[in-house]
Order: sequence, then structure tokens, then C-alpha cells
Amino acid sequence: MTLNVGVIGVGMIGREHIARLTDKLVGAKVVALADVNAKSAEEAAAGLPGAKVYPTGEALIAAAGVDAVVVTSWGPTHEGYVLGAIKAGKPVFCEKPLATTAEACLRIVEAEIATGRHLVQVGFQRRYDKGYRALKKAIDDGVIGAPLMIHCAHRNPSVPEAYVSDMAIVDTFIHEIDALRWLIDDDYVSAQVLTPRNTKHTHAKLNDPIIVLIATKSGVRIDGEVFVNCRYGYDIRCEVVGEEGVASLPEPESVVLRKDAKLSTAIMQDWKLRFIDSYDVELQDWIEAAKSGKVSGPNAWDGYFAAVTADACLKAMRTGEVAPIVARARPAFYA
Amino acid sequence: MTLNVGVIGVGMIGREHIARLTDKLVGAKVVALADVNAKSAEEAAAGLPGAKVYPTGEALIAAAGVDAVVVTSWGPTHEGYVLGAIKAGKPVFCEKPLATTAEACLRIVEAEIATGRHLVQVGFQRRYDKGYRALKKAIDDGVIGAPLMIHCAHRNPSVPEAYVSDMAIVDTFIHEIDALRWLIDDDYVSAQVLTPRNTKHTHAKLNDPIIVLIATKSGVRIDGEVFVNCRYGYDIRCEVVGEEGVASLPEPESVVLRKDAKLSTAIMQDWKLRFIDSYDVELQDWIEAAKSGKVSGPNAWDGYFAAVTADACLKAMRTGEVAPIVARARPAFYA
Amino acid sequence: MTLNVGVIGVGMIGREHIARLTDKLVGAKVVALADVNAKSAEEAAAGLPGAKVYPTGEALIAAAGVDAVVVTSWGPTHEGYVLGAIKAGKPVFCEKPLATTAEACLRIVEAEIATGRHLVQVGFQRRYDKGYRALKKAIDDGVIGAPLMIHCAHRNPSVPEAYVSDMAIVDTFIHEIDALRWLIDDDYVSAQVLTPRNTKHTHAKLNDPIIVLIATKSGVRIDGEVFVNCRYGYDIRCEVVGEEGVASLPEPESVVLRKDAKLSTAIMQDWKLRFIDSYDVELQDWIEAAKSGKVSGPNAWDGYFAAVTADACLKAMRTGEVAPIVARARPAFYA
Amino acid sequence: MTLNVGVIGVGMIGREHIARLTDKLVGAKVVALADVNAKSAEEAAAGLPGAKVYPTGEALIAAAGVDAVVVTSWGPTHEGYVLGAIKAGKPVFCEKPLATTAEACLRIVEAEIATGRHLVQVGFQRRYDKGYRALKKAIDDGVIGAPLMIHCAHRNPSVPEAYVSDMAIVDTFIHEIDALRWLIDDDYVSAQVLTPRNTKHTHAKLNDPIIVLIATKSGVRIDGEVFVNCRYGYDIRCEVVGEEGVASLPEPESVVLRKDAKLSTAIMQDWKLRFIDSYDVELQDWIEAAKSGKVSGPNAWDGYFAAVTADACLKAMRTGEVAPIVARARPAFYA
Repeated sequence: MTLNVGVIGVGMIGREHIARLTDKLVGAKVVALADVNAKSAEEAAAGLPGAKVYPTGEALIAAAGVDAVVVTSWGPTHEGYVLGAIKAGKPVFCEKPLATTAEACLRIVEAEIATGRHLVQVGFQRRYDKGYRALKKAIDDGVIGAPLMIHCAHRNPSVPEAYVSDMAIVDTFIHEIDALRWLIDDDYVSAQVLTPRNTKHTHAKLNDPIIVLIATKSGVRIDGEVFVNCRYGYDIRCEVVGEEGVASLPEPESVVLRKDAKLSTAIMQDWKLRFIDSYDVELQDWIEAAKSGKVSGPNAWDGYFAAVTADACLKAMRTGEVAPIVARARPAFYA
Repeated sequence: MTLNVGVIGVGMIGREHIARLTDKLVGAKVVALADVNAKSAEEAAAGLPGAKVYPTGEALIAAAGVDAVVVTSWGPTHEGYVLGAIKAGKPVFCEKPLATTAEACLRIVEAEIATGRHLVQVGFQRRYDKGYRALKKAIDDGVIGAPLMIHCAHRNPSVPEAYVSDMAIVDTFIHEIDALRWLIDDDYVSAQVLTPRNTKHTHAKLNDPIIVLIATKSGVRIDGEVFVNCRYGYDIRCEVVGEEGVASLPEPESVVLRKDAKLSTAIMQDWKLRFIDSYDVELQDWIEAAKSGKVSGPNAWDGYFAAVTADACLKAMRTGEVAPIVARARPAFYA
Repeated sequence: MTLNVGVIGVGMIGREHIARLTDKLVGAKVVALADVNAKSAEEAAAGLPGAKVYPTGEALIAAAGVDAVVVTSWGPTHEGYVLGAIKAGKPVFCEKPLATTAEACLRIVEAEIATGRHLVQVGFQRRYDKGYRALKKAIDDGVIGAPLMIHCAHRNPSVPEAYVSDMAIVDTFIHEIDALRWLIDDDYVSAQVLTPRNTKHTHAKLNDPIIVLIATKSGVRIDGEVFVNCRYGYDIRCEVVGEEGVASLPEPESVVLRKDAKLSTAIMQDWKLRFIDSYDVELQDWIEAAKSGKVSGPNAWDGYFAAVTADACLKAMRTGEVAPIVARARPAFYA
Repeated sequence: MTLNVGVIGVGMIGREHIARLTDKLVGAKVVALADVNAKSAEEAAAGLPGAKVYPTGEALIAAAGVDAVVVTSWGPTHEGYVLGAIKAGKPVFCEKPLATTAEACLRIVEAEIATGRHLVQVGFQRRYDKGYRALKKAIDDGVIGAPLMIHCAHRNPSVPEAYVSDMAIVDTFIHEIDALRWLIDDDYVSAQVLTPRNTKHTHAKLNDPIIVLIATKSGVRIDGEVFVNCRYGYDIRCEVVGEEGVASLPEPESVVLRKDAKLSTAIMQDWKLRFIDSYDVELQDWIEAAKSGKVSGPNAWDGYFAAVTADACLKAMRTGEVAPIVARARPAFYA
């Protein structure tokens, strides 16, 4: 059985997912496209035999030949399309964010619960990264005992002028927000943000670097550096300190060079290369989930919890104070 | 377009390739099976809707619905099936060895040249390993200058009693024989084998470890340790020393642990896990090659050269002397 | 010229320093001993030809044949002996702490300034560690640009029952307090302490682990984990994040093993082994300083600043709030 | 008790040892100097209160105030001075080579045996290197089981024009010749030398790199790369493969940098820096040995065995054949 997929939003990430579904993954076919820019959708459809362009996302969702939906449109439109897919009873893969406010995420959660079916997956791809999976396995297997602390860092070589302080949370640290919760299977209770003095390589509207401190329900303490003008590369680090030992995310595999008075390995410059394999695994997993009617990846509740946490981090960043992270009680549906 | 594939030989590796072609890779479909044990073929076909069992490999090759052939039968039968596929003008992927003697390999080479079409690919999967590819890229990009030496090791934790001395060359080091030639784009001229005293963990019919010394046409010297009862794990190492620097095969990605007074990473135990991704990449590459009528992977000439080299290594092992590696001149067809 | 040294306090650290001065270092001779336990002093003197035992530290300081003094007695007695040495105009090496309160340290500072001579060195040996020196050199040479953050950890495998929460600051983190200030040549302005949930391996009177957050005058943010029941070893880590790159303290040199399915290096268990070389370098440096009338190591002001910082950390630990670190303005004498 | 030392030969290495004995080590004093260039000896003596210049090495050896002798003169003079010291019954530390021929070394061995006292130590400093000591400890402790193979490399960034092929053995690989024998406590039986094509960075009189193959009495096989124009740095590597695991010489401690798209550590450029600590440990050990009348470092027999091995390597290099390493039976005196 082939999963007939409709894709809403054919910007960069949309086109990448279309290419994945078409050329690399098995079991799915892109049969429908929609974009606010009709011309873009037509162009994208040109290379896809049998793919039809729909005038709106809503029309695409409603189309009889569409089994499942991928939402890669502009963030503020996510809520509507995801709710539409839920209403139509169709599995939907929504790139992050699930919605732009915690309240909107909650509406999605409630709509999904109301259907009684698990239909929504959110595009937090790190859960599919080989290194994170190995790290989670070590934790789950009890290799380091109960986790007590996580030290992590999210570093980019540089960001454009359009990247401002809030984005350090909602676009960058949001990946840690989801991945760390999953990693130690815990929830968050408070956030604090430290602001070291700025690097000279930042600009007026961006505090860079920052350090996010999060406390979890079980008492684990997380400190996460976000440094998006670190110059030297795209570098994701994560060290989990447990009662019996410490486990760290592996460095990506790289040729070891002895040259020019240095013993070195290369550090990646492009975040897409760093996690490129995980996007494939993620979407393949979703295809299978969509066919079987289950969601094993990050779900609507995870999308909601990430939104609540990001809100608290933003508040903490603005006030300099510890901000509580207050979420609804987790519904049994997502247990 | 889907490539309709017939698989001859449904033993372990055959079934693994069937699974790959069916569930993981795109663009191919297993439509035909044959095995000397008809019942095994029937069983394998049971899970493949539309796959037909043929009484012989020859019948499978001849079948109209079969576009391309995968040969995963017993080694001594390879030559016949590959020649058959060539005769039928069908692309063929043959697991190593291409044939059991250099002469037989040469017959395949000549038959392929006679057709004027590139039809044969041999299953040396290391060329598709991410680490080896990165290493080759570093060399090809001139990062370390012209290669002068290669130090490498092929270690297995243990082997069964059935594994005897010759297999250290024809089953184990054969991978280095092909991969190193490809890595530095050079040919071999002589081989010598050193025999350190045996590990106590070997048995009467197996010299273990050994060191294979190979000289190339351009004067590069290779020393390759083969140690198949090394106890600690499956470990493939390769260091290329060039005029401007030294490059080494990366260690496989692994969680870094601080525990029990050690800073450690895990070493794999199973060779299949070590190269599992490369099998997928290899076969996907072949599917595309078979469709386009080109072979970008190891070809019949590579299979022949590996056989000639293995023969020389075996002779060197028996005599303790330097054995010349004498191959035909490379036909322009394989330039 | 030989420096004739008197040692006050012949407990474990005292005897170690005596052995160093006698057998490993050049230019000094232990000629005088004193201890509150006269018998211990006599025993220590037995192995030192020409060494005389004095009834009190004061008598030792006053003795004509004593050129310089090493204070390794019980902490609360440090102030008196150091003030005594200053008054006598004799160079003094005082093991940490310089004194048990910031006020007492200040009295020493003032007494030293009053003499117009640099006489006091405090036993913060990390400044003499090869790794820390290399790290400081990288920073001072501008290799990583201006420092923005320091992430560090101080881990011990376990501590005895007598070790209680305050000691995490005054005995353990005190080393980071001094070393990090020296490393980035900056002063501290505030401290905060986070308390993750306790490891099950701690006891009722010890919060373990903790995370100390310090802000510096120039805006650098330090996060320092103190985890004294980490089980796996004695592990000191320090990563300095700068505007142009990141530099980390090297792991101590260790044989690389491939064994038992692991690629591993050993982690030390004993803090004394970790820094044993630095004690030698430290005391040799002091011998030369004492002869030349200069102090190049940690001085009385550093001892005072460490005390002020430790007080703030203790306050922060008790209150859970950010505690200001308020020190006198640095006198020109210590510029 | 102070060991009064006379130094014969005040060239670079002589002056370094004088500085060591005077300023860094304990228990010795340089009281006598001699050099074929009397003016150099006078200059060296100028900075050494109480040191006397002797007209000849023989006169220095004979001087009543000289307890022990350090020979750092020109290689061809070593034999005479060492024999002189033996005759005078004085401990002697002789820089490598012990003598310039195996026969001359044997005369020293015989002379020493005749006295019945252990008087001679040879300057193979690697045995005192922290890394090699840790590696030997791992082997001796049985961590990797019985050794089967050693893979090693000795690389220098570049050598001057005066450095010709033979020096790759007698000046460079000679260190491995001694250190590896000591490391696995074994003797050598044959040598072979492989000559890869030359690096373009060598000159007409130097084959570079080469690979030396040595077989030991117990059947261990050693392959040692010597590459003295490797460009990237001074790099000493050694991996011992045993029946239960593999142990490698640690990389020297170095700050870990993340900068310019690389994760790197520095590689040393200067061989003296690489082993600088080991020279101190070596000479301190000798001081104590000289006082106690024992030699725990490399002795005259080791010097002889190194010479015999080097001769075989040179022969193997010239002939391209396997050269037997034939030494006298080890006298009980050196058991």
C-alpha cells in the first residue's frame, strides 16, 4: 500500500520533504500540492507525475485521493491546517512549530483527543538522530543511572540580521526543549535565562550567547548554552550526568587528520547536513505511522509542551527572573 | 520506472538483499526468485506479492519480466549466472567473489567487453561506507598530498572452527584488497605475508594474526593486519600517510561514557552492523546504475583484480616469499 | 644559595611538602619544624638531618636560621602564622585557605601592604598544572578571542560522611574560584547556586551535586558543577567559550585501550595523582620567589578574593538567591 | 650525599645535561668539565661555581673529586671515555650511541663484566617517558595479554640536507630499537626494510619514508614507519596488539580547540619538547643509581644490542633482504 500524501507549503523545507517522499523513502507518493503562491505549487508539481495542485490547503485536505498531509507552510497557518486534517480524520505531519501559541497548540490537542485517534506528528527531527537515539538508549538501559543534570550547547557559526533574540528560544533552543524532555522522559517546571556579555559578532537586536536553565519535575537541572554566532561551526553538544556515570552525545563521524601541526576532525558548518539523515528517518517513520494509524514520534502534546516551555523561556529572558512552566495535566490520551 | 529484479540464491545474504530491495530502497521490485533449494525459494516468495519462483537461475535470467539480476548464490555458481546475465544483456549485481578463480573472472571480463555494455557490479560494499567515502574524498581533494603508505587492520572478535588460514585472505582481507585500490586509485604489483606467532585463541588450521604487505605500481606500501580472534571487537582501521599529512578512517559514531573509572566509547562486535548502512547505499546505487545502463560501483575488472591479488597473497602466505601480482593490462573498456 | 625553610604543621600535606622540599626540589632545605603535636614534629624531624623542632610556630618564625615559612597547620591557625611571618619579614607559603574568614584575609592583606613587600603565597596549585597553563596560554594568546562563558565541573568519586554541603564550596569549588579568576584575569560580581535533586549516593548533610553560577565584572558567565559522589572518578573539566572559538582543558594523558568491546582511557580516582606534578612546580616556584623577594603565584589578595567569593556562594546556596560578591577595591599593591 | 659529576663534551646536549644537573635535579653537582674545545669548556665552567676544567676527558675521569661521569662528546669518542670510566670504577652515563660499532659496544660490555660492577647507563630516554611507562605498565600488568604485534611510527616534520638514509636507522629508529625491546621484554632475530616511493620533500641522499620490519625471538612482529619529512609535526606512535586487547601510546596532553571549523589538538614540532620531561627523569634516575651502585636504566648490554640491531637494519636497507640479527648470548651479568 502506498500512502498518498498532500503537501501544503512548497518553500525550502516543503520541497526537501517532497524530494524525500519521492526519491528516498518507501511507501509514500506525493499526489497533491498547495501553496499560498500558486505558481510555486505549479512549479513543484511539474516534476511530480500525477501530482495535482489545489487552490488552498483546505481543498487539498478535503481531496479524496489524499491519505495524509504534510504541513510545511508559514508558521501562523499551521494551526488551521492541522485542525483541518484532524477534522478530516487524516494523519498530519506538521513542521515545527505545531502552532504559534500554547493556546493554539492546546486547541489542536483537544481536537485530536476529541477524535479519539492519534493523527498529529510534529517535526522535531532530533529524536530520529542516530546519536541522540544512542544517548537515549544508554539512559533508558540504566547505563548511567538516574539522570541528575544535563549540560548542553547549541551553536551556529552565524545568523543573519533578521535573527533576533526571541528566535534563540523559538527557533533554536526549541530543539533542545523537545529533545531533552524526550531524552530523560521528564517534564519541565521552571526556566531562567542568563545573559553573558554579548559576543562582538552579534548585532543590536540579538543577545548572543545566552544560557537557559531549566528545572524538571523530578529535579533534574538543565543548563543549555545557545550561541548562534560562535564562528567555528554548527555544534550540538549534550552531556547527561547520572548517578552512576556520564554519557555524551557522540561527535559526528569525521576523518581524523594529522596536518599543519594539528590533529583534527572537521566540524560541520551547516545544520542541515548535521541532521540530514534524521529527516529521512523521521519522515519514513511517519509514513509507517500514518499507514498504521499510530504516532510514535513527537505528538501534539509534545508540540504543546514545547510551546509552553518556550513561552516561559521568553518570559525569563525578558525579566531575568525564574519563570514557572505551567502546563495542563497530561491527558491520559498521551500517556 | 521500477526495476524488476530477479534474485538467485535466497540464503542469508540473499534474503537480506530481498528485504532491502522491498522495504528500504526505492525504484526496484523483486519479481523473481531461484534457489538450488526450491523450497527456500518458495518460502522467500511467500512474503513477496507478485514474485515468481523459477526452477533454475538460468530460467530466471531468461524470464521476460526480469530486468536485472542479483546473484547471491554459492560462490562456485557465480561465474555461470553472471555470464548468463551478460549473455542476456541484463545488469547483474554479484556478491563477492565475482568468481572463484582469476581465470573465471577474466572470462566474465571478456564476455562483458564483448557486449560493449557495462553490466556487472561486484558486492564490495566498503566503497559505499560513509567513513571510507570521506577518507577517499580527503585523498582525492589533495588534503594529504600524494599517498605514500597505508597502515590498516581488519579485526574480528572471533571466528568459528570452519574458518581456516586461506579465508583470512579470500573472505576477510579481500575487502581491503578492493577498498584500498579504489581508495588511492592505484594497482598492486607484489604481496608478502608476515606471520607473527599465533594468538592462543586461534586453532590448528588458522594462522592468526597475519600481516599482509602490498606494493603498488606507484610505489605506495600497504601493511594490513588481519586478526580474526582479537577478542575485543570488530574493528576496521585505515590510515593513509601522504606527502602533506595523514588521514584516518573515522571511528564509528558512539556515545562517550564516563563510568567505572573509564572514559570510553563502544566498539562494535558485529561486522554486519558496522557496514549495514553501506549495503543500503550500495544496492540503491546499483538500482540506479542498472536503470541507466552504467556501473559506478566495483565492476568486473575490479572483481578480476581482487582475485589476482588474493591469489598472490595466498601464494605469499604459503611460501613466505614476495609474490608478484601479475594481471592483464587494464582494457580501455574499464579505463 | 639555599633557602632554609621552616614548616609549621606536619600533618599529611605538611609531610608531603617536607618530602618535596627535601627530595625533589632544588634550592631549599627544611631546617625547622613545629606542630601542635610535638611528638609528630619530632618524628618528622627524625628523617631530616639538621632540622630542629620548635615548641611553637611563633618560635619557628622567629628563629634566626629560618629564611622562609611554610604553613600547613590547621586552617584556623593560618592567620596568626601568616601575620607572624609578615611581621618577621619572612616569605610565607600558606596552604589554602589563607584564613577562615574574609575579614582575617583582609588583615593579612593590610599587614602585607604595610610592609611594602610581597611575602605571602597561597597554595592554589591548579595555577601550576600543565593543562591549566596551556589553557591560559591559549586564552592569553587570543586563540579563542575574548572569553564569554566558562563551563566547568569538579567531580570526585565519593566523599566521607564528614564532608557536608558547605565543603562543596570551601574545600572543593574553592579551587575553581581561584583558578577561573586567574584563567580569564577577571573579578567576580555575583553568585547563584542551583541544587539538582540529590544523587542517591550522598548522605543527609550533603547536597550533591550542585551547580554554581558566577557572573564576572566583564560579563563572563561561569557555570560550575560540583559533584563529589559521581562514582566514576576524579574528573576536572573546564571549557572556555570565546568570541572566536572554544578551548578545553586537556584530559590527562592516558594509554588508549581497545579491550572488552570498548575503546577507552583510564580516569583517575585520586585527586592527589591528578595534580601531583603541579604541587612540585608550585613549591619550586615559591622557593625561587622567596629567594628573589617576589611572589608570582596566588597572593594574599587572591586568598582574600577567594574567601569573599566562597562566602557569597555559601550565602547563595542557603538562600537560593543571587548573592552579590562584594570585595574591597583591589589595592595598587596587587595590581 | 651529593654526587660530584664530571661532564665530557659541552656541546648542545652536554650543556643541557649540565643545566639539568645544576638547576633542576637533586643530589648531583657538576664539578668537572672537559671538551676537545678547551674554550667551550671554560665558557661552560664560568657559570658553575666550583667547577674545574680538565685538559682531557681522561684527566677528568681520573680526577679524585669526580664521583661519576657524563659522556656527551662526539660519538666516536664514546668508547674510550666509557672504558676509561669503567677502568676507574666510576659510574658513567653515556649519551647514545654507546659506541659506533657493535664490536666496540661488546668491548665495553666485557670490560664492565670484568669489573663485576654495573657502571654504565646509555641515554635512551624514552624508557623514562610517562607515556611509554604507562604503556609498559599496561603490558606488564597483563592488560592486553601476550603481545603479538607492534605497529609504530617515528615522524619528524623535516630534516636538514645533512641527514642521509643511514641516519633514519642510527639516529632516528634507534630509539624504537631500544624502547620496543624494553617494552615487551624480548630480543630481536631479524630485520627487513621496505622502501615506499620517496616523498617529494626528501633529497637525493635520503630514502624517506621507510618501513622497518623486525621479528622477535618470541615471534612478535614489529612494523615501524620512519618518516622524517612528514611535514605536519613530530609524532611518535606506538600500538601494541596483544592476545586480549590493544594498547596505544597516549597522545601528549594538549588543549582541545574548537575553532575554524575544526576540533583539534596541537601536534608538537620539536622532538626535544616531546621528551623534555623524560630527560629529567632519566638523569635523576641515573644520579640515584650512580649513588647506589645500581643501573636501572638502559645498560651496556642494551647499548650493544641496539648496535647489533641497527647494523642488521642497515644491511636490510641496502640489500632489500631479510637480515638476521645475531647477537652474543646475553651474559648472566645482565639477566
